[in-house]
Amino acid sequence: MESSGVGFVTPRDVTFAGAEDEPLLLESGRRFGPVTVRYESYGSLNADRTNAILILHAFSGDAHAAGRHGETDRRPGWWDAMIGPGRPFDTDRYCVICSNVLGGCQGTTGPGSLDPTTGRPYGLAFPVVTIEDMVNVQYRLVRHLGIERLLAAAGGSMGGMQALQWTISYPEAVAGAIVLASTARLSAQGIAFNAVGRNAIMSDAQWNNGEYYGKAAPARGLAIARMVGHITYLSDASMHTKFGRRLQEREQFGFDFSDQFEVESYLEYQGGTFVDRFDANTYIYLSKAIDYFDLGGKYGSLEAAFEKTTSKFLLVSYTSDWLYPSYQGKEIVVALMRRGKDVSYTELDCPYGHDSFLLETERQGALIASFLQTVNRHA
Amino acid sequence: MESSGVGFVTPRDVTFAGAEDEPLLLESGRRFGPVTVRYESYGSLNADRTNAILILHAFSGDAHAAGRHGETDRRPGWWDAMIGPGRPFDTDRYCVICSNVLGGCQGTTGPGSLDPTTGRPYGLAFPVVTIEDMVNVQYRLVRHLGIERLLAAAGGSMGGMQALQWTISYPEAVAGAIVLASTARLSAQGIAFNAVGRNAIMSDAQWNNGEYYGKAAPARGLAIARMVGHITYLSDASMHTKFGRRLQEREQFGFDFSDQFEVESYLEYQGGTFVDRFDANTYIYLSKAIDYFDLGGKYGSLEAAFEKTTSKFLLVSYTSDWLYPSYQGKEIVVALMRRGKDVSYTELDCPYGHDSFLLETERQGALIASFLQTVNRHA
Repeated sequence: MESSGVGFVTPRDVTFAGAEDEPLLLESGRRFGPVTVRYESYGSLNADRTNAILILHAFSGDAHAAGRHGETDRRPGWWDAMIGPGRPFDTDRYCVICSNVLGGCQGTTGPGSLDPTTGRPYGLAFPVVTIEDMVNVQYRLVRHLGIERLLAAAGGSMGGMQALQWTISYPEAVAGAIVLASTARLSAQGIAFNAVGRNAIMSDAQWNNGEYYGKAAPARGLAIARMVGHITYLSDASMHTKFGRRLQEREQFGFDFSDQFEVESYLEYQGGTFVDRFDANTYIYLSKAIDYFDLGGKYGSLEAAFEKTTSKFLLVSYTSDWLYPSYQGKEIVVALMRRGKDVSYTELDCPYGHDSFLLETERQGALIASFLQTVNRHA
Repeated sequence: MESSGVGFVTPRDVTFAGAEDEPLLLESGRRFGPVTVRYESYGSLNADRTNAILILHAFSGDAHAAGRHGETDRRPGWWDAMIGPGRPFDTDRYCVICSNVLGGCQGTTGPGSLDPTTGRPYGLAFPVVTIEDMVNVQYRLVRHLGIERLLAAAGGSMGGMQALQWTISYPEAVAGAIVLASTARLSAQGIAFNAVGRNAIMSDAQWNNGEYYGKAAPARGLAIARMVGHITYLSDASMHTKFGRRLQEREQFGFDFSDQFEVESYLEYQGGTFVDRFDANTYIYLSKAIDYFDLGGKYGSLEAAFEKTTSKFLLVSYTSDWLYPSYQGKEIVVALMRRGKDVSYTELDCPYGHDSFLLETERQGALIASFLQTVNRHA
């Protein structure tokens, strides 16, 4: 078992519904509820509730950011190396919270959840949600936990989009924003890759217009979507280092379609197992939320988007990330600086592509630990 | 109608079979035949047959490199801007020939051709062929046309692989090699993208293990494969310039799955129409041939691969080509120079990604015209 700093953790659910909770007003204009939120927390809230850090997960992530649910867990949470006693998100000092996003499939209400009006899973009756909608749900969770102001909101990729949106939607409720491998708007190329994934799922006959719950899932379509996604998370160099041109379990070409390169076999395995933990409709909904994300477009300009933010910002981009390349991180930095905001930016020379924010824990960890101390002093 | 320099052209077929033509010995060790080759030619052979240039097409290309087949052709051949009187491949001086590759679906024998032993299309009974096998078929065509030595073999992408293989397989038969946007070996990332395409096709129920001829083709799978491929042929910058984040025929998000970004709509259109001109099994076979291509692996080292070449080389790479990035072109140049070969290399600063070799006709054209004159003087 890999070591985990926080040890065993228990996920919790909270449901926002009923008289005291007005149904969520979505960005689309639609009212939606009830919403159940799955979350985990590591470390303890201090007496004045000022040491909370909200971790925001990426596309295929979940609330299980650190620790293990039990003895049988083979691996700890997805950011375990970053969260724990003495780790960058130091649970001796901070209370670290992570929740599954709205539209997800790991405990928070999403297209696979039961629609109380029909008693059946939502499927495509689930509303199209946005990054802002996710953040609004997170805000309810944070208030539910009695927290007025987060010490920080932190995430990579889609998680970084949420961190940016937090500073805009709730400027008084977040002292620091940590934005890794992220962007203020999805590029045309990014939309194109997402469109391929959605097409692959929707072309699978088992998708059945989103109504496959209780039946066979669109496993082939989801696997192909995941394969495409996976390529975009890595880099040419990291794939070369990891796989090169080695064949799977053979030395010579077979001159038929049974022989495979290791990279092919790896991707097919990753695609094939993804269906065990991820819902195809969530893939469709979350990729759409990412496609829609465009702070400059939404608020008139990127500078205007950040007009009312009061948070300190830490942005990190990675040289080999070609999905959300450094120039996109720099656009955010420039917009913030032009508005006189407090922003630190580092581009890390790192070979792991977009996944660097999950894998490069040492240098990134030092930056984050130092940033959190600065925010803490001034919060 | 776009203007075409060469005007109307007629494709020709030649079949290698019977007593005088030993069946082709494939790299796999399998004997295969008969093979029909579809080709076109533009310009005239001179009396001593020393002015022939063989154009080698890329993955989804065909023998129709220039001109029109008739009045109703909406567009001329795929490299028309480069071929014609006064154009870089100057048909006033050179006889330009282009043939469809072995395994193709545009007139040359491929998986969709009739297997004479069964009377039915080959499907997966077609042998796995390689870039070297394609070149061996081209050599037969060239000899059939009475040409002892080509003035040049020229191509981009998979066409560049063939040009490199020509200089190795038939060092005395090719005076110049023009290699654009190409590589001496497919990268792990390139294999991964090809694997996604093959998976998409093979996951389409209509693919039916390759036996779909005369029935519905695996159109959705092929469309998805094409969408992925298309993204890799463009660049982040060119997609941003061409599509940005514009929505298709609307101004505001629809918050449902009927609204699309222009780039999505474009890719779906490209994918959807591809099936009209391309065979899914050819996609599988040609992508496999590209995956197998690795001159260094095959000959021990890239330097060793070029040991016996006598051709002059012109290599061009393009700054925005992330599928076959410039460093891969430079590896070829370094290997050639270490063996004292005659090589010219240019990296063109061009925004169109891998497709630059199809689109950047002016600067690339000048380089090619000049190179051909040099080769011609010394041939």
